[in-house]
Amino acid sequence: MSAPVRIDRGRLEATFAEQARIGATARGGLTRLALSDEDRAIRDRVVAWLEAAGCTVRIDRMGNIFGRRPGGGGSGGPPVVMGSHVDSVPTGGRFDGALGVVCAIEAVRAVADAGIRTRHPLEVAIFTNEEGARFQPAMLGSAVLAGKVALEDAYNTRDRHGIRLVDELERIGYLGPEPCAARPMRAYLELHIEQGPRLEEAKLAVGVVEGIVAIAWTRIAFHGDQDHAGPTPMRTRHDALVAAAEVVRAVRRIALDLGDEPVGTVGWLDVQPNIVNAIPGQVVLTVDQRAPRDADLDRARARLDEAVRAAAAAEGVRVETEPLMRVPLTPFDPEVVGAVEAAAQRLGVRYRRLLSGAGHDAQHMATLCPTGMVFVPSIGGKSHCEEEATDFDDIEQGANVLLHAALQLAGPA
Amino acid sequence: MSAPVRIDRGRLEATFAEQARIGATARGGLTRLALSDEDRAIRDRVVAWLEAAGCTVRIDRMGNIFGRRPGGGGSGGPPVVMGSHVDSVPTGGRFDGALGVVCAIEAVRAVADAGIRTRHPLEVAIFTNEEGARFQPAMLGSAVLAGKVALEDAYNTRDRHGIRLVDELERIGYLGPEPCAARPMRAYLELHIEQGPRLEEAKLAVGVVEGIVAIAWTRIAFHGDQDHAGPTPMRTRHDALVAAAEVVRAVRRIALDLGDEPVGTVGWLDVQPNIVNAIPGQVVLTVDQRAPRDADLDRARARLDEAVRAAAAAEGVRVETEPLMRVPLTPFDPEVVGAVEAAAQRLGVRYRRLLSGAGHDAQHMATLCPTGMVFVPSIGGKSHCEEEATDFDDIEQGANVLLHAALQLAGPA
Repeated sequence: MSAPVRIDRGRLEATFAEQARIGATARGGLTRLALSDEDRAIRDRVVAWLEAAGCTVRIDRMGNIFGRRPGGGGSGGPPVVMGSHVDSVPTGGRFDGALGVVCAIEAVRAVADAGIRTRHPLEVAIFTNEEGARFQPAMLGSAVLAGKVALEDAYNTRDRHGIRLVDELERIGYLGPEPCAARPMRAYLELHIEQGPRLEEAKLAVGVVEGIVAIAWTRIAFHGDQDHAGPTPMRTRHDALVAAAEVVRAVRRIALDLGDEPVGTVGWLDVQPNIVNAIPGQVVLTVDQRAPRDADLDRARARLDEAVRAAAAAEGVRVETEPLMRVPLTPFDPEVVGAVEAAAQRLGVRYRRLLSGAGHDAQHMATLCPTGMVFVPSIGGKSHCEEEATDFDDIEQGANVLLHAALQLAGPA
Repeated sequence: MSAPVRIDRGRLEATFAEQARIGATARGGLTRLALSDEDRAIRDRVVAWLEAAGCTVRIDRMGNIFGRRPGGGGSGGPPVVMGSHVDSVPTGGRFDGALGVVCAIEAVRAVADAGIRTRHPLEVAIFTNEEGARFQPAMLGSAVLAGKVALEDAYNTRDRHGIRLVDELERIGYLGPEPCAARPMRAYLELHIEQGPRLEEAKLAVGVVEGIVAIAWTRIAFHGDQDHAGPTPMRTRHDALVAAAEVVRAVRRIALDLGDEPVGTVGWLDVQPNIVNAIPGQVVLTVDQRAPRDADLDRARARLDEAVRAAAAAEGVRVETEPLMRVPLTPFDPEVVGAVEAAAQRLGVRYRRLLSGAGHDAQHMATLCPTGMVFVPSIGGKSHCEEEATDFDDIEQGANVLLHAALQLAGPA
C-alpha cells in the first residue's frame, strides 16, 4: 500500500465546516433531527460530495445512503465500508456522526486523487436515524440492515407528533429503491468522537476501538399514594419520589462498587402529578447501566433489583420493573482492529486500545461483517451538547488512520 | 338561640349529589377547573339555589359570589359569612370546596325554614380559583378581596394555554360589577374536609380549626454537566439528579427530625434533558415545608439550606435556591373558634381542636375579619383525588356545627 497517501486537511476542514452550517445553532452546535428538512439538506450535500468523488450512489428502503468507488476487479465484490450518520440530537454538537461521514468521504477523495486502485470497492455509508432522538429505537437504519428490526416496524415508528418514519422518508426524497438487507461486505470501519475523556486525558490522538460495552436499560415505576402535601402526616405517606430517590443513589453506588469502568445513570425521571403541594403518586424512571464485561453488567442488574425492592418496601409503595434493552458486549473483529492499530503504528499516531461506552451503527454492522472503529478525542469528554469539540490536529490523524486501515483491508488491485 | 334548628340531611345530600354531577369523572371524582364551562355551570346552580333560599346575590369584579340573607336590622350591617369554593383540581374529588358551599347554603335554608331572624345578615361566599390548578396563585379570589393581590395582576394571570383570567371571567358571565375589596364583616366561617387522617383515626366527626400551619415553598435548581451516559466515567460526573435525590431524602429526614407535626414534600421535579442515556444537566425541584410553629418552620428551612449546599458540594454542581412563598402561622379568632367549639359541645358532636395543614380562603379572610373553620373527616385522609370521600353522618354533624356557630355569631334579631 502506498505509504505517502494522506487526506487533504484543508479540504476536510472545509467539508466539515460546510456540513456544520446545515442545522447550525446560534451557540455553535447542531439541531439536525432525523428526516427533517435539515437532514434532507445535509443528505443532498453528501450525495453531491460522493458523486463528485467518483462514487455511484444508491439509497435503500430505509434511506441509508451508500456511495461506492469500484474496486480493481470491476464494481462487484464485497466492499470495505466506511460510515456513520448525519442526524443529531436536539442542540447537539457538530462532530457526532457527521465527522465520520466527512472523514470517510475525504478518504475516498484521497484514494481517487492518488490514483490508487483497490481490490475491494470502497464504500461510504450514511445510516438513517442513528441518534434515536426523533424516532425510536436509535441506530434504526443499521438495525434494519442487520435484520434486527423489520422494515415494516421501522416504517411505522412515529415521532412525538405522530408522524410516521416512512412518510418522512418519502417527504424528504430518501425512500430509496434498494433492498435494506444483508449483503457481502469485506469490512466496516467507523470513525467517531470518543464522547468520553480518556483519550484527551492521556493526550492521545486516536482510540483503537476493540468493541462496545455491554448495555442494559431498565424502566422502573413506583406507585405510591398521591396525597395533599399539607395535612398528610409523614408517618402515613407512601411517596413514590422518596423511593425513586433511593434508586438514584443506588445506581451511583452500584457502579462505583464495581470498579473504575462500569457506569450507571438515571437519565429520565417523570413525576406524577408533579405539583408543588401534592405527594408524588407515581414516579417512572429509567436506569442505564454499562460495563466492559457481561458478568459485571449482570451483577449490576442484580444489585439494582435488590435496591429497587428495598426502596419500595421501605416506603410502602408498589413497584414494577421492566427490562427495556440488554445488549451483550460487542467485540470487534480482530483483523479489523489489527488493521486500525497497524495504521496508527505505521503513521506514528499516539493511540490506545479501548472499548466504546456508547452504541454506534458499528454495533449492528458487527453482526454482518468484520467491523472496527477509530475514535478521536472529545475535548472535556463532552458530547450531545453544543460545546462538543475535537481538535483538527487529532481529526487529521484519525482520518489518516481510517484511510490506511481501509486501504489495508481493501487490498491492492 | 333556638336549639332545635337543624339542617335537612336529605336536602343537603340531594344538593351535594347535584353539584357532584357537574364536571363528574367516570371514577366518581370531579374535574371542574376555575372559570371553565363546568365552573360556569356549577356557579349558575349555586346562584339559583341561593336565590331560591331567599338570598340577594352579588358578583364582584373577581367573580366571587355573595348571597345575602338580610339581618334583623334590615339588609345592612356586617354579615356573618360562610363560604368556600366550587373549583377543583384535575381529576380531584367531589368534596373539596363544594362541600363547604353546599353546607353554607343548607344552613341558610334551615334558618329560613325555621323562620329565624338574626341580628347580623348571613352571607354565603363562593371564591374564585381557590385551587390554583388553572391560574396561579391559589386562593386568588380571596387574595384580591384581602388586598394581597392587585385586581389588575389577577386579571392578567394566564393559564398554560395563555388565556387571561379576566377574559375567562367575562366569557362565563361572572365578571361582576361589585368592588372586590374589604368591607365590614362580623365573621367568616368555612366548612371543609380535613384532607388528612387525624379525625378519622380518632373517630371524631368534627375538627375545630384553630388556625393554619406556617408554610414555606422553596425552588431549588441544580446545574450539573449534561453528558453521555455511556462513555463518561463515574469519577468525572456532575449529575444534577444525584444532587436532587439527596435533597428528596433530606426533606423527609428534616421533617421527621422535627417531631410528629412538621411535614416536608418534594412534589414537583423536572429533569433536563430527560433522556435515557444522558446524564441530567439540570434538575429543578420544589420543596413544600409546613409546621405548626413558625420557629419549627424556620429550623426546617435552615436545615434544608444546609442539605442543599452539602448535596451541591458533594456532586460538584452549581445550585440556586429561591424562596417562593412564606406564610406564617395563621391563628384564627378566639371568639369564632370558641363559637365553633361551643356549637359542637351543644350538639353533642365528638370533636377535637386542630390546625389545618392546608391553605384555605379562610387564610385571607382572617386578615379581614374574625375567622374560623369547621373540618369534617377525610376517609383514609385522602384528597385531591377521585377517591376523596366523607361519610354523610359526619357531614350532617359538621353542617349543624356550622349552622349553630353562625347563628351564635350573628346573634338574635
